[in-house]
Amino acid sequence: MTNIKDIARIAGVSVSTVSRVINNHPYVSEEKKSAVLEAMEKTNYQINMKAVHLSKGKSQLIGVVVPFANHPYFGLLVEGIANKAVSYHFHFVLIQTNYEEEREREALDMLKHKQIDGLIICSRISEMKQIREYTNYGRIVLCENAANYDFVSSVYIDHFQAFYDALTFLYQKEYRKIGYCIGRESGSNSYNRKKAYKQFHEEMELVCNKQYIFSENYYLEDGEKVVREIRQMGNPPEALLVTSDAVAAGILMACEKNGIKVPGDMAIIGFGNQPISKSMEITTFEIPLVKMGERLFEQVIGKNQIKHEELKIQLIERNTV
Amino acid sequence: MTNIKDIARIAGVSVSTVSRVINNHPYVSEEKKSAVLEAMEKTNYQINMKAVHLSKGKSQLIGVVVPFANHPYFGLLVEGIANKAVSYHFHFVLIQTNYEEEREREALDMLKHKQIDGLIICSRISEMKQIREYTNYGRIVLCENAANYDFVSSVYIDHFQAFYDALTFLYQKEYRKIGYCIGRESGSNSYNRKKAYKQFHEEMELVCNKQYIFSENYYLEDGEKVVREIRQMGNPPEALLVTSDAVAAGILMACEKNGIKVPGDMAIIGFGNQPISKSMEITTFEIPLVKMGERLFEQVIGKNQIKHEELKIQLIERNTV
Repeated sequence: MTNIKDIARIAGVSVSTVSRVINNHPYVSEEKKSAVLEAMEKTNYQINMKAVHLSKGKSQLIGVVVPFANHPYFGLLVEGIANKAVSYHFHFVLIQTNYEEEREREALDMLKHKQIDGLIICSRISEMKQIREYTNYGRIVLCENAANYDFVSSVYIDHFQAFYDALTFLYQKEYRKIGYCIGRESGSNSYNRKKAYKQFHEEMELVCNKQYIFSENYYLEDGEKVVREIRQMGNPPEALLVTSDAVAAGILMACEKNGIKVPGDMAIIGFGNQPISKSMEITTFEIPLVKMGERLFEQVIGKNQIKHEELKIQLIERNTV
Repeated sequence: MTNIKDIARIAGVSVSTVSRVINNHPYVSEEKKSAVLEAMEKTNYQINMKAVHLSKGKSQLIGVVVPFANHPYFGLLVEGIANKAVSYHFHFVLIQTNYEEEREREALDMLKHKQIDGLIICSRISEMKQIREYTNYGRIVLCENAANYDFVSSVYIDHFQAFYDALTFLYQKEYRKIGYCIGRESGSNSYNRKKAYKQFHEEMELVCNKQYIFSENYYLEDGEKVVREIRQMGNPPEALLVTSDAVAAGILMACEKNGIKVPGDMAIIGFGNQPISKSMEITTFEIPLVKMGERLFEQVIGKNQIKHEELKIQLIERNTV
């Protein structure tokens, strides 16, 4: 097999010149460059990119941690990441954790072992203390408000404020028995939502009903489960904040099937402003998820210092409140 | 920085023993193994996994080519791939092509340059001739009927038969003006669907109406566009085969908005049996996409010979025909 020395000999240049051409270094004369490229062509020399990256210490690969590879919310983040990866000539490794800490650790270890140049964590499981250790090996960007930390960058929306605004909107529309649907109960976004929910209820002197909090809802089909639970309640909620448009759509469909009028018997506010919310005319918060993915990517490959960036969201009034 | 020689010295073993431990080779005594691991621990020695993989010639990475990272159909394939990647301790690089040939070429080049060990192409753009060249560098698995080729493996469903069966079903229900909605017009799956459509119309002595073929439909929101076109036709179709459940759902919603009765004025058959088709009671073909993703993954990491595997699909009768 041809090696770099053969190329140098055939091209009549030094080995280091061949190396410079392979690594696209400046200060190689056009003449020598063409001689090298010609010799490579002639011998059908395959550059082992892994070896090149190894010598450069860069893989041109970014890790992207998501709880589920196929989920509408994370799908839009990944879409934004993929858009930017294409334009920056990077590729990304998608790491699905199923919210198992060990999987997230695998991703962090990929950073440690230089298999990836940086890591985007779309939904974190590990403690910040642990994340901190790994920032020695490359840049880590989080998709949550991490403004209190100086070792990671973050792109986030203010889930506390979003929930507080949504509750205020429902309150103004005379709703008093308000519940909410989320994915997992742990995690910083859920923490901030719960905080807003509690604070709002305290301020308005409303009673918090634990039954009105529905967790583990990720997909459209989870909407049926929520409505089944509600139908069995003696004192059901009259309005729901639903942190995923897909679940909101599922709830709306199940309400229609069960003769629950929306709005009227039940008001629904989704999150995402995804196509299904438009088609089904669901009142929702526009969350710029694709843009968020794009910014996450630009942060992770960026050479600038640690940065925390909040993206604004906006209530889109339609027909479910 | 500690290197492999230091580890050998501290552990009191040879360099090749350290190398065997790092590479998880058999025939290392437990005693020597613990000595090496202890020395690594003590010196906080970081294994450069890229270097390890380079020496093994394996990256434990698989490339996955999709036209769009965030699309319900490909999302389910990726879900299946992600499931198996987790259990086999592999990771995968997701390469979004936007159906640009250059992007697919980048993925093929990653195989050539040993950045990935194998490649799954979920929707192909390149000619088979070109794919063939790259099979010298690693295994390539296609998500289409490639049974005529002995250099790639494939996992597929018979899109010709599925379309033919769907048309027969509609014909038996007295529908004569049948159209269909697809994504892109090129590609082998679309070719087989068109072939089935033409053959069926010839056999039944029905006239093929070019206006009844709607292409470039990928997402739920594309349904509105289709219904808009249909409403402007003097002689509209009475039934539609829709190759994506999401688009079928969008068409159903747009029909409801525009007072087009389904079924009655319009029959709809989707493909996928995705949750939205269940929630909206859309008649559809069950396509085991997650299983397909799992099989694609197992084929690409498999050591066995080239294999072509057909997965069966099934008509799920609901309320739109």
